[in-house]
Amino acid sequence: MLEELKQQVWQANLLLPKYNLVTFTWGNVSALDRASGLVVIKPSGVEYDRLRPEDMVVVSLEGEVVEGRLKPSSDTPTHLVLYRAFPEMGGIVHTHSRWATIWAQAGMSIPALGTTHADYFYSDIPCTRRMTAAEIKGSYEKETGNVIVETIQGTPVMDTPAAIVNSHGPFVWGKDADDAVYHAVVLEEIAMMAWHTRMLNYENVRMQQELLDKHYLRKHGKNAYYGQAK
Amino acid sequence: MLEELKQQVWQANLLLPKYNLVTFTWGNVSALDRASGLVVIKPSGVEYDRLRPEDMVVVSLEGEVVEGRLKPSSDTPTHLVLYRAFPEMGGIVHTHSRWATIWAQAGMSIPALGTTHADYFYSDIPCTRRMTAAEIKGSYEKETGNVIVETIQGTPVMDTPAAIVNSHGPFVWGKDADDAVYHAVVLEEIAMMAWHTRMLNYENVRMQQELLDKHYLRKHGKNAYYGQAK
Amino acid sequence: MLEELKQQVWQANLLLPKYNLVTFTWGNVSALDRASGLVVIKPSGVEYDRLRPEDMVVVSLEGEVVEGRLKPSSDTPTHLVLYRAFPEMGGIVHTHSRWATIWAQAGMSIPALGTTHADYFYSDIPCTRRMTAAEIKGSYEKETGNVIVETIQGTPVMDTPAAIVNSHGPFVWGKDADDAVYHAVVLEEIAMMAWHTRMLNYENVRMQQELLDKHYLRKHGKNAYYGQAK
Amino acid sequence: MLEELKQQVWQANLLLPKYNLVTFTWGNVSALDRASGLVVIKPSGVEYDRLRPEDMVVVSLEGEVVEGRLKPSSDTPTHLVLYRAFPEMGGIVHTHSRWATIWAQAGMSIPALGTTHADYFYSDIPCTRRMTAAEIKGSYEKETGNVIVETIQGTPVMDTPAAIVNSHGPFVWGKDADDAVYHAVVLEEIAMMAWHTRMLNYENVRMQQELLDKHYLRKHGKNAYYGQAK
Repeated sequence: MLEELKQQVWQANLLLPKYNLVTFTWGNVSALDRASGLVVIKPSGVEYDRLRPEDMVVVSLEGEVVEGRLKPSSDTPTHLVLYRAFPEMGGIVHTHSRWATIWAQAGMSIPALGTTHADYFYSDIPCTRRMTAAEIKGSYEKETGNVIVETIQGTPVMDTPAAIVNSHGPFVWGKDADDAVYHAVVLEEIAMMAWHTRMLNYENVRMQQELLDKHYLRKHGKNAYYGQAK
Repeated sequence: MLEELKQQVWQANLLLPKYNLVTFTWGNVSALDRASGLVVIKPSGVEYDRLRPEDMVVVSLEGEVVEGRLKPSSDTPTHLVLYRAFPEMGGIVHTHSRWATIWAQAGMSIPALGTTHADYFYSDIPCTRRMTAAEIKGSYEKETGNVIVETIQGTPVMDTPAAIVNSHGPFVWGKDADDAVYHAVVLEEIAMMAWHTRMLNYENVRMQQELLDKHYLRKHGKNAYYGQAK
Repeated sequence: MLEELKQQVWQANLLLPKYNLVTFTWGNVSALDRASGLVVIKPSGVEYDRLRPEDMVVVSLEGEVVEGRLKPSSDTPTHLVLYRAFPEMGGIVHTHSRWATIWAQAGMSIPALGTTHADYFYSDIPCTRRMTAAEIKGSYEKETGNVIVETIQGTPVMDTPAAIVNSHGPFVWGKDADDAVYHAVVLEEIAMMAWHTRMLNYENVRMQQELLDKHYLRKHGKNAYYGQAK
Repeated sequence: MLEELKQQVWQANLLLPKYNLVTFTWGNVSALDRASGLVVIKPSGVEYDRLRPEDMVVVSLEGEVVEGRLKPSSDTPTHLVLYRAFPEMGGIVHTHSRWATIWAQAGMSIPALGTTHADYFYSDIPCTRRMTAAEIKGSYEKETGNVIVETIQGTPVMDTPAAIVNSHGPFVWGKDADDAVYHAVVLEEIAMMAWHTRMLNYENVRMQQELLDKHYLRKHGKNAYYGQAK
């Protein structure tokens, strides 16, 4: 069932240690099969070097396990809230990657400070509000999804494919699993550079809107001219 | 004698360079055999790439060498004080890993700032007071153990399995040698992220108690639901 | 056509990931063939591990593609402005290398703070002004070249073979492609050290002019005495 | 001639890239043969991966090349001043390693902040004064040695086997070439940790003299008890 998508999600999960985004098992990638409305996701707490394609778990958008011997990631409800709210998301990544997590722990959005950011994210990377005690004590992982939805709703979510959860870490998405991991790598780079930029120059170093437009739009949209014709 | 435990302690010691926690010989792992009350520990000053299982030293809880051609780690008395005070500790690690040592040198406890911390440590990582001149000039390594005991006594020591010794570095423990090394890796990650969080946002960024509870308890204790059923 | 130069430019491009100056495809190297007035440059958006010598694109100094199946780097117009203004440049590198980009995002020139800087750069590394909205919305990549030319014109450009573009990143050059990459590696080192020096000591830590002269001139010019006679 | 020492110096030079202390050719190791009063040193500007034992250059303490096809390191006069002033130095290393160079560029001595420092250095690592214009314009490399001698003279130089030259970088020594490289690695570690400790806690975090004594003396001198009996 969904063998090809399992392969893709498995390989995308293996990219997390390759790009140094995870320690131990602290990350997970999922992808949505639009035809069936099913989601393939990493099992909970399994080490990356033991992970096999057939370990991937298939769940419905409502969270029912449809196939798989193992429990899905404990963060599954967060992924599902996002897929239900934004069906254009085809893949989602959650990690505790260092630099994005530092901004999350500081409770601060990552400002757009340069063209590296603008090449992939068309605004600041928003940080959610802190969750309430009721949200934390309730269906915590689902509420984590809800607070992300609250933060990004009404914005073009595929233009800024990441949000950071206050006191926690990043959730990143894309049109598929690979694209989501790509954005997670970029996020880590820009989070590292934004941290150091801000320490060096506390004044307003926010980039110009025109430059943000130029770089984002030369890579994305109908007038993009970066890269080779597909 | 204790051949299996020697293998475990040997392998756990080799994880220290693998996880980039040590330079040269600056670290050691021990484990307690509860049945016999004996401790297996790394020999003093032996390089990791020359270390063999049979080099491990067996000592009694009172510090007598029971087996082994080599001198045990000079930090052995610190380990033994901890095992005597807290028999639930099954493995102990000492390193001078960079980020934990930076907090130790600053004389500051590592505050709980995010869910990565909460997943493994159920409170701040405490920093000991400075030792007195008498303690330093006396049985120094034993007194190092005593000042750790003084710092953590009365707290649930297995819920926050690390302490940092002022002007020195971390001691970390677990239910066995592997578990202790695992915690030492986590400690280094959270110490790195806490340093950068604090520099980015000096205001109170301490995480909410509810979130600390949620993350710690979803991984630990009778209602834990992270990972696969064992 | 220009097979030897294509080989050189291809190999110089491969040095960028080797020296950890690029993530994904975020960099490009070009070189000028003085005899023909043609430039060889990396194709746009092709991954380094798939790049082959025959993928290199040959363009005229006016930007016409003379040979090559692929589109040249989107930054080609910037390279060409520099070659036209300063024909002594034989190779040019553009990356988003972390530490140089941090200074660019902060909008600050990298001050000469020590002999490592002085060994290769005979002044501060200048940061351009921000570009105007008209420049950004116009022929952006060409205007990027123009703002670099405006910044360095009238200075001995081969003595300080780099500039950083405000809110963007570094452009680095040399007598050929290899020399330019060498300077890009040095730039990254000195940008990292300058950042940390400035944070440690905010006072004027600028190096003495005499020391800058001594180190630059013992490696460069007719009285150089570093290295082996060629 | 001095074949064994050449092997040792060659291997010690290769440790510099292994321990990530050098970029390109920015470092050199020498050793003194006490019997003959000759010094073996790396040739100037030769890349580490092309370096062979027979490339090592033999010079007299007065700087005359006694054997070798290649020019000795341009820093040779600095090494020789140190050997002449302190014949107990058996090996000397010079690098531009990042963290030690950051302190040098800031013009600040590296304070003793913890036991990692105390295990190998029995005081702060001193930073020299800036050199005068006359010293820089004169016999610069020899004067570099003189300003180090001025800084450390009258102190037990083998107890604190390093100094950092203002606006330049570290010189490190030991009883032989290997010992000097070992100290260079330690210096880099403690420079990194001291930088971050100071940023985290600006207050006086200098370690206690008693603790400095304890750690230094448990590893060095007649009552040392760390490591295995030799």
